[in-house]
Amino acid sequence: MFLGVVREKSILSQNHALADQHKKTLVVINRLSRIEGHVRAIKRMLKEGRPCPDVLIQLAAVKSAVRKAAQVVLEDHIESCLGQAAIKGTSDKNWHSLKEALDKYIS
Amino acid sequence: MFLGVVREKSILSQNHALADQHKKTLVVINRLSRIEGHVRAIKRMLKEGRPCPDVLIQLAAVKSAVRKAAQVVLEDHIESCLGQAAIKGTSDKNWHSLKEALDKYIS
Repeated sequence: MFLGVVREKSILSQNHALADQHKKTLVVINRLSRIEGHVRAIKRMLKEGRPCPDVLIQLAAVKSAVRKAAQVVLEDHIESCLGQAAIKGTSDKNWHSLKEALDKYIS
Repeated sequence: MFLGVVREKSILSQNHALADQHKKTLVVINRLSRIEGHVRAIKRMLKEGRPCPDVLIQLAAVKSAVRKAAQVVLEDHIESCLGQAAIKGTSDKNWHSLKEALDKYIS
């Protein structure tokens, strides 16, 4: 896990512009790595014939983790991208694309 | 992908009782494999610095896929486990554990 995080940091540090603009990209990537591991664990539960209610509870935890990852992406977007867009005077277009994404996320 | 599915089938066929009781276990495992791949693809999007609204849309798709996988688990549970439990006269306990799981899933 630790080595994985170091590797992610190394990949991100190759793109300084990205790392500067989005402060929480690494946080989101690490959250997604944990979600991946969680999904793999649920597959193991199914193969072992674990009770359905236990599987449902774990799927609920994954759904909640995806929701939290999206929340971090959204916060980062508001703090970084939209702030920059407002400075550059291109915020109308950016707000529109965010609104579209939120419509799809919430529906 | 095809080899992966064959491998899952082989693992499941080692447990005939499980395969008989839950008709859709393989379907759920394959759905979870696709979710794993989707999450990996979103990590790549973040590393490539793709726009936040695009990432949000993909996270929405993952959330929806998790919800659908849970729906299949629930249908399978109702058709297989609860049906068996009703025959054996142990349905009260089973209904209680399903209710608990649903409470956690819906909240």
